[in-house]
Amino acid sequence: MHATLIHGPRDIRFERVDDPAIQRPTDAVVRVVASCVCGSDLWPYRGVQQTDEPARIGHEFVGMVEAVGDAVQTVLVGDFVIAPFAISDGTCVHCRNGITTSCDNGEWWGSEDDDGFVVDGGQGEIVRVPLADGTLVATPDVPDDAMIPDLLTLSDVMGTGHHAALSAGVRAGSTVVVVGDGAVGLCGVLAANRLGADRIIAMSRHADRQAVARRFGATDVVEERGADGVTRIKDLTDGVGVDAVLECVGTKESMQQALESARPGGRVGFVGVPAGGPELPVREMFGTNVGVVGGVAPVRTYLPELLAEVLDGRLTPGAVFDRELALSEVAEAYRAMDERRAIKVLLRP
Amino acid sequence: MHATLIHGPRDIRFERVDDPAIQRPTDAVVRVVASCVCGSDLWPYRGVQQTDEPARIGHEFVGMVEAVGDAVQTVLVGDFVIAPFAISDGTCVHCRNGITTSCDNGEWWGSEDDDGFVVDGGQGEIVRVPLADGTLVATPDVPDDAMIPDLLTLSDVMGTGHHAALSAGVRAGSTVVVVGDGAVGLCGVLAANRLGADRIIAMSRHADRQAVARRFGATDVVEERGADGVTRIKDLTDGVGVDAVLECVGTKESMQQALESARPGGRVGFVGVPAGGPELPVREMFGTNVGVVGGVAPVRTYLPELLAEVLDGRLTPGAVFDRELALSEVAEAYRAMDERRAIKVLLRP
Repeated sequence: MHATLIHGPRDIRFERVDDPAIQRPTDAVVRVVASCVCGSDLWPYRGVQQTDEPARIGHEFVGMVEAVGDAVQTVLVGDFVIAPFAISDGTCVHCRNGITTSCDNGEWWGSEDDDGFVVDGGQGEIVRVPLADGTLVATPDVPDDAMIPDLLTLSDVMGTGHHAALSAGVRAGSTVVVVGDGAVGLCGVLAANRLGADRIIAMSRHADRQAVARRFGATDVVEERGADGVTRIKDLTDGVGVDAVLECVGTKESMQQALESARPGGRVGFVGVPAGGPELPVREMFGTNVGVVGGVAPVRTYLPELLAEVLDGRLTPGAVFDRELALSEVAEAYRAMDERRAIKVLLRP
Repeated sequence: MHATLIHGPRDIRFERVDDPAIQRPTDAVVRVVASCVCGSDLWPYRGVQQTDEPARIGHEFVGMVEAVGDAVQTVLVGDFVIAPFAISDGTCVHCRNGITTSCDNGEWWGSEDDDGFVVDGGQGEIVRVPLADGTLVATPDVPDDAMIPDLLTLSDVMGTGHHAALSAGVRAGSTVVVVGDGAVGLCGVLAANRLGADRIIAMSRHADRQAVARRFGATDVVEERGADGVTRIKDLTDGVGVDAVLECVGTKESMQQALESARPGGRVGFVGVPAGGPELPVREMFGTNVGVVGGVAPVRTYLPELLAEVLDGRLTPGAVFDRELALSEVAEAYRAMDERRAIKVLLRP
């Protein structure tokens, strides 16, 4: 089969690799129906994270189960499944606490496990899925093709936006700022709307993303950034700031903007992978009582709840995909996202 | 009248000062019945915070109302009142949001207001109370003398411990670690117990404080600190860590210990005034989903709820006072607390 490998900065190749097969009784093998490129894939693509040797990449996919190991109980051959961006057993204490991204037996797509087995990346034609019972969620029926984009967001961006909103304490009546207009930020808008937020201010300077944000429930759009952005937020909120800020970027500047946009006693929910290692200003947080909660989203935990709403048509996050390419054109997908010509690219084998 | 002034490191004096009088129609004048020394008073006492010129000090007191300005409506002459450690109007948006320590018109005891009026410190015989309606809480009757220690904790330490517990998300069934065995940490133990925590591990190496912690509901005591303390916490929790950590110290070391004691997805509630400006490790927090929430406790917000329980005898935090002195002996009170010969000293004029 073919899969995507990253060889170094801006060097993405779709190459022939060994066909995956069941290695352990808890494995499944899934033929990919749709995959995509994540904002976090752009960190190694841009060289911000180093690539020491060619490596599988991609961590979001949906597909059809082609084989299961003897111990797999909840997933059957022929099932349509959604794979979250992290592999988890579903049974350890952390999974039971809902933090599947801290699973005692967790793995990451595109890595190598402790026994030296390749863990496939999600941007390939076929994927071996370790810990299939804990990791995969099957739909009751094979879904319509039109629903594939919505379902694929449950692999990562919709669950991650939801984690940001929950971490920021969004509830009915909340005022919200969303920092970041990538797919996660846009899903954060949708998640805040779904949780009943009264006012949702999206920070975005791109017309296409603003349009999706409005469609997802943004009541206001602010184009300014940094200190100017904070000033605009304060202007819009009688000088007070908002109850909840969703930080969906991960830079020092975006976090500072988030902290300053919150009202005293407000909360920042952060899901942007911290790039460049900014630390949080604890004295400022102490003075304002603005809390910071978040991290690697346990999307597996949220999947059943969000999936039910996607299946009955109430939740339609698929609009974050504004371009579709063949999986073999994956290098162009990276280019388009890197150059901000696309919000998020869906890939079909 | 006499009041306490700090002249510099380890230089506390009880001196004659002008008698306070109503300056604004929203003022009250309160004759102090009991006051005390706060752990945070020890920062300037030890020279960690600089004292540029002699300044009034103390921010916890209860007393009898002797005079009220024309605009005061909720407090009457003859009322017994509790003064929180921050002055607040009770009507601005931040007060309405419950964050009285961010009041738009707030003041701090022992400072000077925008018009140059002295704001008395709490360690004096008489105190002018600005914004009396917003700041003070009166009891229905003049309480028994035996209840004074319990009531005085509502000025600061009990409300602050409660803020730590709420910020850390303590609820029925939680497992909790309390870092810090000062009066705030001990009140944090009591607050966690009151909120229904299942297991409360107090970090303390002093027998007298351990005894109070046990009395307040601690189920375990850990004497080790730093990495050894974290190891012990992990040993006690099957390697997992706890749901909620109350950080009641404010050093870089104590915060790191708090972060490492929480389980993935756990929460640190912090109320220790950050000393030395450590920043928070955002990457570590991202990886573990351990959130950090807290700050200057809005004890005024919590006062009515906690007061009701003190008055009916359900809540007895007064045991944090293990020594009582005359107010004129205030310098000895500072020495005793600085040298850890006392947990907290109650002062009576």
